[in-house]
Amino acid sequence: MKEYKVTILGATGAVGMEMLKVLQERNFPISELRLLASSHSAGRQIDTNYGTITVMEAADDAFEGMDIVLGAAENNISERFVDAIKASGATYIDNSSAFRLDPDVPLVVPEVNPEDAFKNHGVIANPNCSTIITVVAVNAINKLSRINAMYASTYQAVSGAGIKGPQEMYTQTRNILAGEEIECHTFQHQIAFNLIPQIGSFTENGYSKEEMKLQNEGRKIMHLPEMKVSCTCVRVPVERSHSISVDVITDERLDLDTVRKAISEAAGCKLVDDPANEIYPMPLDTSNQDLVYVGRIRRDLVNENGINLWCCGDQVRKGAATNAVQIAELLIEK
Amino acid sequence: MKEYKVTILGATGAVGMEMLKVLQERNFPISELRLLASSHSAGRQIDTNYGTITVMEAADDAFEGMDIVLGAAENNISERFVDAIKASGATYIDNSSAFRLDPDVPLVVPEVNPEDAFKNHGVIANPNCSTIITVVAVNAINKLSRINAMYASTYQAVSGAGIKGPQEMYTQTRNILAGEEIECHTFQHQIAFNLIPQIGSFTENGYSKEEMKLQNEGRKIMHLPEMKVSCTCVRVPVERSHSISVDVITDERLDLDTVRKAISEAAGCKLVDDPANEIYPMPLDTSNQDLVYVGRIRRDLVNENGINLWCCGDQVRKGAATNAVQIAELLIEK
Repeated sequence: MKEYKVTILGATGAVGMEMLKVLQERNFPISELRLLASSHSAGRQIDTNYGTITVMEAADDAFEGMDIVLGAAENNISERFVDAIKASGATYIDNSSAFRLDPDVPLVVPEVNPEDAFKNHGVIANPNCSTIITVVAVNAINKLSRINAMYASTYQAVSGAGIKGPQEMYTQTRNILAGEEIECHTFQHQIAFNLIPQIGSFTENGYSKEEMKLQNEGRKIMHLPEMKVSCTCVRVPVERSHSISVDVITDERLDLDTVRKAISEAAGCKLVDDPANEIYPMPLDTSNQDLVYVGRIRRDLVNENGINLWCCGDQVRKGAATNAVQIAELLIEK
Repeated sequence: MKEYKVTILGATGAVGMEMLKVLQERNFPISELRLLASSHSAGRQIDTNYGTITVMEAADDAFEGMDIVLGAAENNISERFVDAIKASGATYIDNSSAFRLDPDVPLVVPEVNPEDAFKNHGVIANPNCSTIITVVAVNAINKLSRINAMYASTYQAVSGAGIKGPQEMYTQTRNILAGEEIECHTFQHQIAFNLIPQIGSFTENGYSKEEMKLQNEGRKIMHLPEMKVSCTCVRVPVERSHSISVDVITDERLDLDTVRKAISEAAGCKLVDDPANEIYPMPLDTSNQDLVYVGRIRRDLVNENGINLWCCGDQVRKGAATNAVQIAELLIEK
């Protein structure tokens, strides 16, 4: 079996560490693994199935000879190194949002548009976490009848903000239970026992960048250039797994049992829809695994062609690390 | 100044205790206060501005001579005593859902439909908590152009389940932080660091009773018998104040600044809408006060006549106790 030289750029962050975990779990065939991070983390030793690896500082010459670079860094780091990665000949699977809407860069969810991965020119973008979870949930509906619009409200876990997110939530929680003052560093406001209706910065139309991703990235992934999406993104005091309340409006009116059957058979989905027995997706149940759970499927009461559902998925895994590794698997399978 | 004989039925529950607090804060003119509860709580002594009151067991003859009965009990208790209250000649302002959709019973939010209170035949219903908060938030929009539909996703605090809700959330939180097992009694599943997409029981169409209230009660309060509402209700690990992500679709397209101005001037509302400066409604800020905070106002990207907003309000106060006392104030002002 052919083995590959793989680099993780941003290896010591929450997504980078999860990428390493997922590569090992899935026995990704690796002959050489390189872990790159900032100078701050360089020198750290990390035990892996591929040997003990010393974290190296990311630099232009660090990508030479690599086959695949998994990017788990912020946009500015990704933009800083993209030319060096392309020059090295490696394929760059980038989790940042820097290149997602670039027409030369495929934006891929393997369960939805795997064929797009092969149209790459050296860079493949990994979509936004909530977007991945939502498109996996609604892809089967789109196959039954084209989606022309969605209303979505998200309930996003603190780990979406990186390793410091859960740290801040738990520290604040302990402080509050002890009657002490809290501090806010990672989030704009107190997140323990509170909600923050802001994720990322705002754009001119009053939506945050995060809220616009479901429309902009969703259009590209699902090949629905005219799909309209109104989204509200909210941070909630949950450690892991994003949840999304979605209303999906399709060209034709669909039968609910047909929708349930299609979702139950859809790649990457698990139908969890027995509310009478108190069974529905919850973030607690979807953490540390790769399926998107879909439930609460019912008729939209406003639009006769609409379907209302609730989905949850682990945004660090399927929403980021696992999706990137799945893209790499697509490439090596070919 | 005339003073009134007032009873709180269900006085020792979360809403009943808040009703007592709000009556005192607002200096409601009371000549005699009677606090009724189950036999379990009878005999408790409660210090009030109206003297030290001994809680009495609710019974048919306990309402005699009363002017106003504020109901803070469950549906079965409300149904059990409604005839006795009516027979006593008192006006019954009931927070249970038992009579809300009865055509003979006005369903009143004083900022929205105060005139309906005077059409009562002895019983006035206090609406559902999320419904009160949402209709206060959107009432100004409805005055600008009739609302024909809403999409709503709620983020409902644990205190909506009564006194035991916060107790269970905090106990589970402490247990989890200590690495101990948790127990679930009040909620169907773990609520600490989790979300539960179920509030109350489900109806045949797949929506919970709670989810249908925004349409059914909203229609009656706003006199919009054809308004369509698709709602998803979710319990979140927040102690107090419900939040709702709402998309409001009106007959005409409205200007956003006109909407902001109308909401800023609307009774019961506070415009909190400066996202660029990280200012928007949050449950932490709306607890223990009576205004509904409204922000994140922006154009719906799906429907050109739609407006997207985010609102928060204290569901124990404005969503229940304060609204009931405000109804009583309407009656005595007349």
